[in-house]
Amino acid sequence: MHHHFIPTHYFRSLGPFAPVLRVRSGDSISTTTVDASGSDLNGVNVTPRGNPQTGPFYVEEAEPGDTLVVKLDRIQPNRRSGWARSVVAPNVVDPSFVKQLPDAPLAEWSVDIDCGTATLESPLSNLGRLTIPLEPMLGCFGVAPLRQQAISTATSGEHGGNMDYRGFVTGTTVFFPVFEPGGLFFLGDGHAAQGDGEIVGTGIEISMDVTVTLRVLKGKTIQWPRGENADSIFTVGNARPLDQCLQHATTEMLRWLEQDYELESLGANLLLSQCVRYDLGNMFDPAYTMVCKLPKRFLKSG
Amino acid sequence: MHHHFIPTHYFRSLGPFAPVLRVRSGDSISTTTVDASGSDLNGVNVTPRGNPQTGPFYVEEAEPGDTLVVKLDRIQPNRRSGWARSVVAPNVVDPSFVKQLPDAPLAEWSVDIDCGTATLESPLSNLGRLTIPLEPMLGCFGVAPLRQQAISTATSGEHGGNMDYRGFVTGTTVFFPVFEPGGLFFLGDGHAAQGDGEIVGTGIEISMDVTVTLRVLKGKTIQWPRGENADSIFTVGNARPLDQCLQHATTEMLRWLEQDYELESLGANLLLSQCVRYDLGNMFDPAYTMVCKLPKRFLKSG
Amino acid sequence: MHHHFIPTHYFRSLGPFAPVLRVRSGDSISTTTVDASGSDLNGVNVTPRGNPQTGPFYVEEAEPGDTLVVKLDRIQPNRRSGWARSVVAPNVVDPSFVKQLPDAPLAEWSVDIDCGTATLESPLSNLGRLTIPLEPMLGCFGVAPLRQQAISTATSGEHGGNMDYRGFVTGTTVFFPVFEPGGLFFLGDGHAAQGDGEIVGTGIEISMDVTVTLRVLKGKTIQWPRGENADSIFTVGNARPLDQCLQHATTEMLRWLEQDYELESLGANLLLSQCVRYDLGNMFDPAYTMVCKLPKRFLKSG
Amino acid sequence: MHHHFIPTHYFRSLGPFAPVLRVRSGDSISTTTVDASGSDLNGVNVTPRGNPQTGPFYVEEAEPGDTLVVKLDRIQPNRRSGWARSVVAPNVVDPSFVKQLPDAPLAEWSVDIDCGTATLESPLSNLGRLTIPLEPMLGCFGVAPLRQQAISTATSGEHGGNMDYRGFVTGTTVFFPVFEPGGLFFLGDGHAAQGDGEIVGTGIEISMDVTVTLRVLKGKTIQWPRGENADSIFTVGNARPLDQCLQHATTEMLRWLEQDYELESLGANLLLSQCVRYDLGNMFDPAYTMVCKLPKRFLKSG
Repeated sequence: MHHHFIPTHYFRSLGPFAPVLRVRSGDSISTTTVDASGSDLNGVNVTPRGNPQTGPFYVEEAEPGDTLVVKLDRIQPNRRSGWARSVVAPNVVDPSFVKQLPDAPLAEWSVDIDCGTATLESPLSNLGRLTIPLEPMLGCFGVAPLRQQAISTATSGEHGGNMDYRGFVTGTTVFFPVFEPGGLFFLGDGHAAQGDGEIVGTGIEISMDVTVTLRVLKGKTIQWPRGENADSIFTVGNARPLDQCLQHATTEMLRWLEQDYELESLGANLLLSQCVRYDLGNMFDPAYTMVCKLPKRFLKSG
Repeated sequence: MHHHFIPTHYFRSLGPFAPVLRVRSGDSISTTTVDASGSDLNGVNVTPRGNPQTGPFYVEEAEPGDTLVVKLDRIQPNRRSGWARSVVAPNVVDPSFVKQLPDAPLAEWSVDIDCGTATLESPLSNLGRLTIPLEPMLGCFGVAPLRQQAISTATSGEHGGNMDYRGFVTGTTVFFPVFEPGGLFFLGDGHAAQGDGEIVGTGIEISMDVTVTLRVLKGKTIQWPRGENADSIFTVGNARPLDQCLQHATTEMLRWLEQDYELESLGANLLLSQCVRYDLGNMFDPAYTMVCKLPKRFLKSG
Repeated sequence: MHHHFIPTHYFRSLGPFAPVLRVRSGDSISTTTVDASGSDLNGVNVTPRGNPQTGPFYVEEAEPGDTLVVKLDRIQPNRRSGWARSVVAPNVVDPSFVKQLPDAPLAEWSVDIDCGTATLESPLSNLGRLTIPLEPMLGCFGVAPLRQQAISTATSGEHGGNMDYRGFVTGTTVFFPVFEPGGLFFLGDGHAAQGDGEIVGTGIEISMDVTVTLRVLKGKTIQWPRGENADSIFTVGNARPLDQCLQHATTEMLRWLEQDYELESLGANLLLSQCVRYDLGNMFDPAYTMVCKLPKRFLKSG
Repeated sequence: MHHHFIPTHYFRSLGPFAPVLRVRSGDSISTTTVDASGSDLNGVNVTPRGNPQTGPFYVEEAEPGDTLVVKLDRIQPNRRSGWARSVVAPNVVDPSFVKQLPDAPLAEWSVDIDCGTATLESPLSNLGRLTIPLEPMLGCFGVAPLRQQAISTATSGEHGGNMDYRGFVTGTTVFFPVFEPGGLFFLGDGHAAQGDGEIVGTGIEISMDVTVTLRVLKGKTIQWPRGENADSIFTVGNARPLDQCLQHATTEMLRWLEQDYELESLGANLLLSQCVRYDLGNMFDPAYTMVCKLPKRFLKSG
């Protein structure tokens, strides 16, 4: 079944809140998200800033210990301009270099969906009108966390949250552990494009039209978000420092290979040894994000 | 001028040692490297294990404060088999998962240069005979460090060293700060292929035929290794934790953009904001490695 | 006014929950806490494990932006035995050493309040019946967090939580930022004694009789928990890695010295330069804890 | 035998350099050290800045795999004034706070050995003439490192080096692993007093008269520096981040307890569980330092 959902209120944490819509496993939802500052497709501020989330959506079949599968069917900017910070955050340069960072006006980027580009509008610098390809993605999405916590959309964890990974684009499938009945899926914080690490603290922040398909894997338990796209499978670790992100993601990948790909422990290790890839998600939030990735072509050898 | 150099002894640290050959800026050197365990093209162990280095090469024009440019003209395995560890290192998984890592026999990989593949030889696991593409690279190379230190080839720093970055392949140009007269360039630790992070502690370790061209940029001072290939420019940060690697590399990239690309500080920041990419080098050594990368196509907008 | 409060239910996260008692600034509360596993003074399990909290207590005058002052008037074990883990956690040893850690039975410690000692009961090892001094403390306490979050008692943050600092003993005064109306003060997780870092994941876990006096500093805003005892003032940073804990705590101490001790910025820096002390709280939880401390005798020089 | 040694040159790295004096196990050496900037007892600069080291001293019996025992018999400032930085380093505050740190003039401290005090001389701030107790200590000392490395006195490692631990005072005994024949003991970087963490990058830097007694433990192999004073035994971990320092130090303490105190593994873990203490050495250098400490009175229970 396909639902069309128009949000009327938003959440700035992921938690065990009253669902806005109940759906069944296999259903699709088309909805909208506001940008990180709470502004909608008309640029009107409709809710306080801080990665406001659409949802939560309750999936009837989902119970703690299951896995919620989220197919990102469509992530499309629904207005013509986005905004971004313009100066790298003090935590991503040498501490002794921080004093050399310039002041930080916001940058406006115009978004041309037909051309698939974003162009730096304002003549803030001698950089000129930089034009880059659109790569629309969701920065913050996930499920209600473990132990009935309500965790701010400024950070991330086993439940997902503000991961800011450039791989969360149209066509990607994401897997979340279910901690609460119904799973309680939230989404928001769309970026028209983003650099690795979200090192200025924003991508090109924009409101989105989003369609997702939600499905429940009964009795399948995972520890950290996982994903799959045309080329790769991947796991996501959210923590600090980056070392620990990588540890979480690598451990989850080993579990995945052993549990679902009929590899014994040594086989899973050997496969990663020369084939593993890592991507950087967010290095701005309280919890950073790293992704452990395995090209699918190597799985075929298995 | 093109030199052919046959090594007779090797070093296991990068330091202010007596040069084995003196060359001029612009000269090329064809030589060989032994594998990480000290074995040569015949599989004969000729020197103790630990990333033994060929060199150092003294470049006449190089003085402290200059930059040494190393063009990797050719990195080619010179034998038909390599070896690798097969189990991920305990520091790349969750501490609570370490006890579940299996024991770690070495794996043999056969290397087919004509087909451009490496194939897992030994039936250690149920993985079968995994075949992956060759990506011959240098794991450990660089110059004599600052302050007349002699630093083990097990680690890395501003001088380069054991960075284990998959981008150090044929065709890449690498820039090192010069700390000692002559620069004193060392090279070794070839990998037929390697996963990101070198998370098992080795790539597919193999001896190599290597050709490099060395050139000096007089009066050009850099802080960390830099590189350039067909698509990108990049900077390298070596430290722990990964957060600090990223800080070093990002800071060095901002310096580069401001000094050499006519961007003022805000322009350099804006360019990185949505265009930066990061790669993981080594997450096994005492110092880890991360790479800050900028696609060249965005520089053209500048 | 002095309240006696007998808890009937407990919370395993600190959040904006319905208060169990409303008090006024200056009131004292005598109550009890169960141990980390949810067992009370009779050793009866009355609530699920995980640092269950007594409270929350609503202080009438407290509004967001104020500071809640908690005087720890009395922290006294109310039964004769506590339990503890006996083996250090895998994250506090070298990753390569984890496989050498033994299996981990729980240890029973008998607690003699008159003698002020705890004695290792069970002959688990050749250590014998180790006897150590009691140092009764609260491991986990604090207020409802920022942004209406509900954060697990397994971790800590600006709101306090599971800090496991040996300095939280009878006689210490602790200051928390107020994020929710009423402050919403929680307490639990008593330890009869504890090593620095809580490196086995527990102290000697025991139920307690606790008396606290709560007071509100109107219009006084702080960022991180602060404390004071007979000898020192201190600030608490909760994060990962320890480096970041120390950064938070040191920054908060500089703010404190500048705002409340009539020191300009350079004076505050100079005072810390040769006089600062650091203590380790927890290095077991998702967020670790470090304490920045300044002996009061140096403040008198100011 | 007691040697009096007057240094004529100094080293800014610890490495396999020509010894300045050969002694036998059990011999004592009285000598002097210059301050971190290379100035001697007369305030005359005699060598370039950077923790210049007196030594190395060759101990006849010491061979790789042995332990060198260094008794710090006397560490006494030999002039009346020291200097210090006055502003905390950017890496010990929140990155977002760095821009608020003031500029950093050096501070002069007058040192009164008879009164046992150091007094802030210059009226840099409104702090006034702060007076603190002398606690003369060595900031940087150790032996030639593993693998014939030469490692800068700006950092530290298994060989010791720039640890800046307030516990390295008169009366303390320190144990170093021997990596080179003769051990090659270096010492320097005296501090009249220092705050924990050396968070401004210096203690009160001063030249010293030092007497040490050197002894060799044949066939005794340790991994990291260890120490002993009247109250405690301790181990030292040097690395980044602090988490890893703590891991190294805790692991070394477990080894010590198991090897030398007749505790089996579980006993050693149990002893640390509730009795361990941690101190912070340096959090300024490339490698930080943490100390794992066990009060001797608990060892008597063993």
